[in-house]
Amino acid sequence: MSDKIKRVVLAYSGGLDTSVILKWLQVTYECEVVTFTADLGQGEELEPARAKARLMGIPDKHIYIDDLREEFVRDFVFPMMRANARYEGDYLLGTSIARPLISKRLIEIARETGADAIAHGATGKGNDQVRFELSAYALAPDIKVIAPWREWDLTSRTALIAWAEKHQIPVPKDKRGESPFSTDANLLHTSSEGKVLEDPWEEVPDYVYSRTDNPEDAPDAPEYITIDFEKGDGVALNGKEMGPATLLAALNDLGRNHGIGRLDLVENRFVGMKSRGMYETPGGEIYARAHRGIEQITLDRGAAHLKDELMPKYAELIYNGFWFAPEREMLQAAIDHSQAKVSGTVRLKLYKGLASVVGRKSPNSLYSERHVTFEDDAGAYDQTDAEGFIKLNALRLRLLAKRDR
Amino acid sequence: MSDKIKRVVLAYSGGLDTSVILKWLQVTYECEVVTFTADLGQGEELEPARAKARLMGIPDKHIYIDDLREEFVRDFVFPMMRANARYEGDYLLGTSIARPLISKRLIEIARETGADAIAHGATGKGNDQVRFELSAYALAPDIKVIAPWREWDLTSRTALIAWAEKHQIPVPKDKRGESPFSTDANLLHTSSEGKVLEDPWEEVPDYVYSRTDNPEDAPDAPEYITIDFEKGDGVALNGKEMGPATLLAALNDLGRNHGIGRLDLVENRFVGMKSRGMYETPGGEIYARAHRGIEQITLDRGAAHLKDELMPKYAELIYNGFWFAPEREMLQAAIDHSQAKVSGTVRLKLYKGLASVVGRKSPNSLYSERHVTFEDDAGAYDQTDAEGFIKLNALRLRLLAKRDR
Amino acid sequence: MSDKIKRVVLAYSGGLDTSVILKWLQVTYECEVVTFTADLGQGEELEPARAKARLMGIPDKHIYIDDLREEFVRDFVFPMMRANARYEGDYLLGTSIARPLISKRLIEIARETGADAIAHGATGKGNDQVRFELSAYALAPDIKVIAPWREWDLTSRTALIAWAEKHQIPVPKDKRGESPFSTDANLLHTSSEGKVLEDPWEEVPDYVYSRTDNPEDAPDAPEYITIDFEKGDGVALNGKEMGPATLLAALNDLGRNHGIGRLDLVENRFVGMKSRGMYETPGGEIYARAHRGIEQITLDRGAAHLKDELMPKYAELIYNGFWFAPEREMLQAAIDHSQAKVSGTVRLKLYKGLASVVGRKSPNSLYSERHVTFEDDAGAYDQTDAEGFIKLNALRLRLLAKRDR
Amino acid sequence: MSDKIKRVVLAYSGGLDTSVILKWLQVTYECEVVTFTADLGQGEELEPARAKARLMGIPDKHIYIDDLREEFVRDFVFPMMRANARYEGDYLLGTSIARPLISKRLIEIARETGADAIAHGATGKGNDQVRFELSAYALAPDIKVIAPWREWDLTSRTALIAWAEKHQIPVPKDKRGESPFSTDANLLHTSSEGKVLEDPWEEVPDYVYSRTDNPEDAPDAPEYITIDFEKGDGVALNGKEMGPATLLAALNDLGRNHGIGRLDLVENRFVGMKSRGMYETPGGEIYARAHRGIEQITLDRGAAHLKDELMPKYAELIYNGFWFAPEREMLQAAIDHSQAKVSGTVRLKLYKGLASVVGRKSPNSLYSERHVTFEDDAGAYDQTDAEGFIKLNALRLRLLAKRDR
Repeated sequence: MSDKIKRVVLAYSGGLDTSVILKWLQVTYECEVVTFTADLGQGEELEPARAKARLMGIPDKHIYIDDLREEFVRDFVFPMMRANARYEGDYLLGTSIARPLISKRLIEIARETGADAIAHGATGKGNDQVRFELSAYALAPDIKVIAPWREWDLTSRTALIAWAEKHQIPVPKDKRGESPFSTDANLLHTSSEGKVLEDPWEEVPDYVYSRTDNPEDAPDAPEYITIDFEKGDGVALNGKEMGPATLLAALNDLGRNHGIGRLDLVENRFVGMKSRGMYETPGGEIYARAHRGIEQITLDRGAAHLKDELMPKYAELIYNGFWFAPEREMLQAAIDHSQAKVSGTVRLKLYKGLASVVGRKSPNSLYSERHVTFEDDAGAYDQTDAEGFIKLNALRLRLLAKRDR
Repeated sequence: MSDKIKRVVLAYSGGLDTSVILKWLQVTYECEVVTFTADLGQGEELEPARAKARLMGIPDKHIYIDDLREEFVRDFVFPMMRANARYEGDYLLGTSIARPLISKRLIEIARETGADAIAHGATGKGNDQVRFELSAYALAPDIKVIAPWREWDLTSRTALIAWAEKHQIPVPKDKRGESPFSTDANLLHTSSEGKVLEDPWEEVPDYVYSRTDNPEDAPDAPEYITIDFEKGDGVALNGKEMGPATLLAALNDLGRNHGIGRLDLVENRFVGMKSRGMYETPGGEIYARAHRGIEQITLDRGAAHLKDELMPKYAELIYNGFWFAPEREMLQAAIDHSQAKVSGTVRLKLYKGLASVVGRKSPNSLYSERHVTFEDDAGAYDQTDAEGFIKLNALRLRLLAKRDR
Repeated sequence: MSDKIKRVVLAYSGGLDTSVILKWLQVTYECEVVTFTADLGQGEELEPARAKARLMGIPDKHIYIDDLREEFVRDFVFPMMRANARYEGDYLLGTSIARPLISKRLIEIARETGADAIAHGATGKGNDQVRFELSAYALAPDIKVIAPWREWDLTSRTALIAWAEKHQIPVPKDKRGESPFSTDANLLHTSSEGKVLEDPWEEVPDYVYSRTDNPEDAPDAPEYITIDFEKGDGVALNGKEMGPATLLAALNDLGRNHGIGRLDLVENRFVGMKSRGMYETPGGEIYARAHRGIEQITLDRGAAHLKDELMPKYAELIYNGFWFAPEREMLQAAIDHSQAKVSGTVRLKLYKGLASVVGRKSPNSLYSERHVTFEDDAGAYDQTDAEGFIKLNALRLRLLAKRDR
Repeated sequence: MSDKIKRVVLAYSGGLDTSVILKWLQVTYECEVVTFTADLGQGEELEPARAKARLMGIPDKHIYIDDLREEFVRDFVFPMMRANARYEGDYLLGTSIARPLISKRLIEIARETGADAIAHGATGKGNDQVRFELSAYALAPDIKVIAPWREWDLTSRTALIAWAEKHQIPVPKDKRGESPFSTDANLLHTSSEGKVLEDPWEEVPDYVYSRTDNPEDAPDAPEYITIDFEKGDGVALNGKEMGPATLLAALNDLGRNHGIGRLDLVENRFVGMKSRGMYETPGGEIYARAHRGIEQITLDRGAAHLKDELMPKYAELIYNGFWFAPEREMLQAAIDHSQAKVSGTVRLKLYKGLASVVGRKSPNSLYSERHVTFEDDAGAYDQTDAEGFIKLNALRLRLLAKRDR
């Protein structure tokens, strides 16, 4: 096994940073580069990436531009939503859940093109390097991974731009200065962090938001919607059937309009430091609340509570990059098992940042008005059963009290 | 041990139902009744309860009216909030957390008055009977508990009112008909359930809300506030120091005004059925979010994640009535241990139902701008460390992949 | 729905107690009785039960005698063993795991015979009533359950025998006196409790043991065996393929001979009290250790640790009678998912009560001598990776230390 | 902050390897070395270490030889035993629990001597480097850590010995060849790994065992002992009060004699590979079983089950080196809270490798013969309570069954 890299697949956005990386790989490793640009719903045109790659000498057969939106939502976002996953109580894991899919595709392309390495543009301080690389190693244990940000000495913006110019990489005017913050976007969310967001006491400036209207500017009238679920996954909006990506996109529009899904969070990175992020997950926030709503009437208590107990670990695994790990798959097996009857309709009210479940119905409902009613229940429930129930639940506490008093 | 009850302490609100119970105890058990009326911040005058008890022949020394608000918030609500407890993802446990305190006081009064029993007005279908009785048995294992709703045959409103009239209990005009829903209130929340709320598909009618303004009617301008924490507990609002109950009351006013803390939930009762409840927790919702905010910068990841993993079980224990159980106390010991450095200030924005953390600062902050910065970090963090970190985290996944491909 | 019971299926052992129950059901409920006698490997002849049932007037078509041994081990014992389940650290759940199968068959027979009720001989103090009935209700929600020991007044041995004689039920001589302890047996174990075992300070008398030789009387020479596993289940002993029940029976013989699987335990019953039991699980103890042995080399750490974390809850669910509950099924889905590669051979040494794993090998082994070796590993593992790994794992602890010192 | 190291505290055994390290530090870092040799009960004379250190020019004031046995057992082993900690089901964590204490003392000595670094002799493949360094960083975030095995090029035995000879370090004859396995020992256990143990299919050769007699050679007669506990910790053996270290040493003698506490394990290292170890924990195994025995009658079910659920994570934290992490301390707080009443006496039978609890008694016993008895219980327990208990536990399962059939 030689350490010389012959061909590397680069996760390539077409932006300045990954263009520098492309060239740097060519210069430094003297290897062929295969570019991979994914449409995950980030809302940018991808064709310019093709032109730029060509300019740097990449042959057409080595330029991959893939629309992964459907796969992203169907095989990653929805399974995660079945778990009601939120990291550290709040974060809907919008960046975390996209990384394993990108790595999966990088590895597939590496196999198709006979590449022996992959490269990504994540820095050495963040979680994304971990997510990319753990996924890659889990799928291709012998793959080599190049993380230029951990290797090169282009540690300042000035150095990076100087290097770009020296190597004839076009530098757009608006990229000459430092961006006041850094973002990542896909169909599920946009995250922003760094620079102006680095003081966690300072409120996030309004200009940082890009995916949601300010709740204060949102419509003064609430909007009611319904989402239909089948076996734990959303299948229709307002009665109209939609595929996963289409549904999430439609919810994003609704969420944007009503200012839903903004989150200002200080979180704990896997690499050991705290960071402050601002997340906009407009459709995801609506979807997540709706999913809990339909579970409320279709999931048994035992299943629901087990899911709640498992969720923090499940979310942590995704956050830390362990999507392709056996323990995530085991938890997924448990979660998916619980969703067989999670079908029905949830009604939500959207209003100035709030997405509130206001109604839910299901052919599989476990809610029994007959049992719960304050009215005469015709013998559905025998109130005297409660005495024995309480007495035996109390027995150990009484024995304790007798001992300890 | 004779089964004849001599003296019973009744949790007495002064309302029609517990007045009927008072008389029914006198008639059925031919025993003395001691009344106990607690001010938990439910917002009702308590003195009328005294007059009514006197009317039914209770001697003054056997009429207890206690202001428990401070103890309630200090010893029950705040410790629970330290855990970020939410039952089934959302419910802030407003009713659940009040029950053990009422039972504790019932038992204390039983001891003071030499009573051999306690009685409560909870029905045989709900969680409250369990909470009252488990707490009572845990504190006084030989106490007898009378739960009239499980014993008597006054199973319709008509029967109850007829019995009241037969026994000269005044029936206010507005209590003759059925109430369209049932409520419970204290300083933390108001819950509503039953009747008009029994169809979980029907939106909660506006007239059910009593503790919060409709977000649509809330002020059009956001309001910013700060809450100061010391060792995990709130101690000041907008820089002004306050005791626990005063702080929660002030947050309730803010929450009411901004329409914060409404929750429409279908939940799983401990007795095995699902029920639909509507909760208003205006101050509690603000407080809960603020507490998470201050933890974000003062709690280490290990502590924070452990708390998140323990929380569902902790919330379930409180919901099910196991406040005075060793496992709740063990979890509390772990949680309280984590709060020693949870001090600082959280800034929140209140606006039309939203309570959003927008800033947090602390002398104990673990957030290190020096480490996280996108700028030159002067060696605080060595990016090359990440490679070894990833490699060893990946090792087991690579060994797996080698085996399984 | 009338409360009158027309036909009841009785879990019938053929012994005195269930014979009394049979007659008592006929007399008290004036209903038809269907008897069901299961061979779970308890080691007793079942045909006498047929004769006795006939004597009490049960028609042949209503006498069910079924050999459930294969189903018991394949569908209940082995799935449980995949989880390494032990209740309260030690108990292999031998009684608990048999109950849901008996209930399942009771319900099937009730359906076949058009019966509207089932009956069992478990007392009102134990766990078995809960296990029988939760399983029955989970499979047939409208079934009626008759638990004579909770209903009748035959609360002393004398009363029971007098009633038997009055109703012409033959009472064997050795059943006239009180048994010094009570037992339950099946292919997995024999449990003993009560009477002479009730003082947890007193050592279990030697005559209580029935399934294992005293280790002191076991052979002075150790015996080595191998067990082969396929996908988490045992398939061969000493290289000879066997079905589940045959394998367990063969291990029982080995365990008996070497005095393996004795356990003296004070445990916590679901109904709230502590009880002292003595368990003999000769083959189960060997099997359980072997299963852990094969998992050691075939399960990834993430999967193994998740299994260990889930196990106590899984064991508790089985102990408490929740085999047919969604949360047990969810956990089983997770556990079963982990077993796909749990194949290979374990070698054990059996000696005077000890069953020790002394070797394990597998085509699916994840153990990499190349990585772990103290010798030159030819680059399999780069020791410098450890520094970064430690540094990033330490980062949060260092930030804590800087704050707190 | 200069990177030049001025003074380093070395964890020094006096053996060949750490003697080479001592010299190597002097040569490579041109720094002063402070030696620290701990008596953790490993059973070796420590004074030779002093002489050797002097020979290498260490001044007396910089030679630390400390007896840490009492602190080790009191503050590390016993708190861990309160949790019933076993890693991966079996391992009593004998090595893991010693490392944080060594690091604590290294840091104390570094402060006393003004040293700016510590050094240890653990390799880059194992867990111990992680444990030493995480503990060190948690106590002294700016300390430098030197791990020669990760730095130097002495990667073969031959190279090491050649280097030793070149630097005038005496090489004992029996150290010239490779040791057939590697060991670590302290008062709690001896571990062995490597070389002859590297094939997990091969039985551990008899000559590897050093702390326990072969069960086959153990006495043919069982020995009965009692251990007294106070608040979760052992305080007396056979009625004779002893301090923690004395008690553990006495149990070690008993365990050795009866061949107790041998464990052959393939475990998952934190650094990502599997390794095969052989552990001998004679006294620890007896103690661990006794502790569970006393908990059986003194711990409430809720506390006991919570402990069992928390244990795997607690054990993993210790194994991975996170003793001085907030989450370990939180778990310890919960565990310690549970131990207030864990007092009493356990009787055990020791026989040829088995340590079996055969009796337990306590003034704090929660075992109620009155409740559990098969005899007339004089109303202690009302069997009819069980019906309501079962009915309400079954309710959710029945609602499920009605939906799903």
